[in-house]
Amino acid sequence: MTNQTVTTRIVLASRPVGKPVAASFRLERESLRELAVGEILLEVLYLSLDPYMRGRMDDAKSYAQPVEIDGVMEGGTVARVVKSRNTEYAPGDIVLSHSGWQSHAISNGAGLRKLDPNAASISTALGILGMPGFTAYAGLRNIGRPKAGETLVVAAASGAVGSAVGQIGKIFGTRVVGIAGGSDKCGYLRDELGFDAAIDHRAGDFQAQLASACPDGIDIYFENVGGHVWKAVFPLLNDFARVPVCGLIAHYNEGPSASDGPDQLPAVMRAILRKSLTIRGFIQREFADQRPDFYREAEKWIADGRLRYKEDIVDGLENAPEAFLGLLEGRNFGKLIIRVARE
Amino acid sequence: MTNQTVTTRIVLASRPVGKPVAASFRLERESLRELAVGEILLEVLYLSLDPYMRGRMDDAKSYAQPVEIDGVMEGGTVARVVKSRNTEYAPGDIVLSHSGWQSHAISNGAGLRKLDPNAASISTALGILGMPGFTAYAGLRNIGRPKAGETLVVAAASGAVGSAVGQIGKIFGTRVVGIAGGSDKCGYLRDELGFDAAIDHRAGDFQAQLASACPDGIDIYFENVGGHVWKAVFPLLNDFARVPVCGLIAHYNEGPSASDGPDQLPAVMRAILRKSLTIRGFIQREFADQRPDFYREAEKWIADGRLRYKEDIVDGLENAPEAFLGLLEGRNFGKLIIRVARE
Repeated sequence: MTNQTVTTRIVLASRPVGKPVAASFRLERESLRELAVGEILLEVLYLSLDPYMRGRMDDAKSYAQPVEIDGVMEGGTVARVVKSRNTEYAPGDIVLSHSGWQSHAISNGAGLRKLDPNAASISTALGILGMPGFTAYAGLRNIGRPKAGETLVVAAASGAVGSAVGQIGKIFGTRVVGIAGGSDKCGYLRDELGFDAAIDHRAGDFQAQLASACPDGIDIYFENVGGHVWKAVFPLLNDFARVPVCGLIAHYNEGPSASDGPDQLPAVMRAILRKSLTIRGFIQREFADQRPDFYREAEKWIADGRLRYKEDIVDGLENAPEAFLGLLEGRNFGKLIIRVARE
Repeated sequence: MTNQTVTTRIVLASRPVGKPVAASFRLERESLRELAVGEILLEVLYLSLDPYMRGRMDDAKSYAQPVEIDGVMEGGTVARVVKSRNTEYAPGDIVLSHSGWQSHAISNGAGLRKLDPNAASISTALGILGMPGFTAYAGLRNIGRPKAGETLVVAAASGAVGSAVGQIGKIFGTRVVGIAGGSDKCGYLRDELGFDAAIDHRAGDFQAQLASACPDGIDIYFENVGGHVWKAVFPLLNDFARVPVCGLIAHYNEGPSASDGPDQLPAVMRAILRKSLTIRGFIQREFADQRPDFYREAEKWIADGRLRYKEDIVDGLENAPEAFLGLLEGRNFGKLIIRVARE
């Protein structure tokens, strides 16, 4: 007699044209089959929501496969092992997985990482001690290459990646200017995270405020936004400035074709030439061999109080679509995580 | 009794708006003063004409000071010492200088490099063994970072920089595709320089020809042109492609404002992100410490016949403005040099 597990999952109902909407997603329930030898059953506790997921909803050529129509939305999770036919995992183990927007999943153990619940809050494996934190670390170390005294500007600075970029930039001795949306987020950056300045990109005089916060120009701009933030940053870039590009949230809802003019590309290319700029896209995976360094350093920085984090936790898998739409508009404050089940 | 030397020189008469014209320049004659102790008198034999000089005619912010109105046009030269009050230089010495568009100049010896007329044709110090050759070498080595079997595309491929890029790319084991204007230049690249393919950017089906010459995509694009060549190259760039930018000749005659739409920038930034591209502007000076390596390797490659060059020599300083205007339109074929005086 079997004791069948039902998984609740959110699938891609249709590819969005422009902004995703509620109807882009569909909630389903499905019975899972029995475990085969070597497999484990996961119960998801936390699901990470991240801007990159917008890209997976398109079928444009990218570094990653798109989610298929009717396929489960992709995503990193922290899960508990509830049944195991794999000798390496026992019921009760907590693992980092990539099981997507669903409550339960079967895994053969490949690609999982066991988490120690005593070392750090397990949800941090989706944020400061996970992909977003490592994106910040790897992009700054390998592409930003900060030197003490330089000016580092980071967009979406109160988000999961941006808040880590700014704090690691401070640890490396740079002057850090954050850009965020609204006075609450800006206050948090200055008062809680120790940024040297924080500018609200919604302010009418945003560009002037940014210029006055960067009297020596900008040596590193950590780009994860694009749009009007880039336009304000671009003229302030110094000779030999580095621009790691890990996201372009302002453009995710645009189609693949060229945007309305005027064409900014020639002016940007001329500046790249005249100022010897480096513009470099990256995904953290490229630097995977530096993950052990990252875990070691970041855990120490967290313990020392030099690296802080904020989580924006939303209860219930059924609320993931709405929370995700809010993320694309900057409505979250801190790393957005769905609590799928109680720890 | 003094024996006064008269220098013939070409000055910047007015800053061009768009394309420079004959009236942008003015030819003047001026008597030079007597030499002070430590100074030498140079008679220019060869003047180099290079695309970067267009940038010096504007007063836009750049890595270099603009030429002043009524100032002598800037430029590298090969000159003969005709008088010396400097113990390090004797009459008859041949030097690489930066004395500009003029027939004679007084120097205190700073920044000069003595040339050995027996080692190589002295005009090569302005081309294959000079700034253009080193630009190719430094950009390829430090930014292009070619791996054997990769596809390297170079624009303005029959020019001073491009022809060196392609040949050094072959030495490093890449498959090399050159882009040039006209069938003569393309034939030269294939037949004389050993490029794997050469595409005429004036052809109606240029983009299709380029795509079929790059069946495995493009790993390195050595950018010195911009404009419609970039548009054809850009969709073919592979993941992790590198784009050293050392010139944008298609844009030099544009004003500083944004160009007519549509705006290509968002699509380019998205590709930088999706494909983990590196776009990097540079000036060879940044890599000056690698010049000894370059001279050693390039001299060997030239001696072995693996690095060839073509010079387009125009007689008479008075013809420099017209030759320079032709250079901006690709009318030269090979490194453009003005013969100011007979060796």
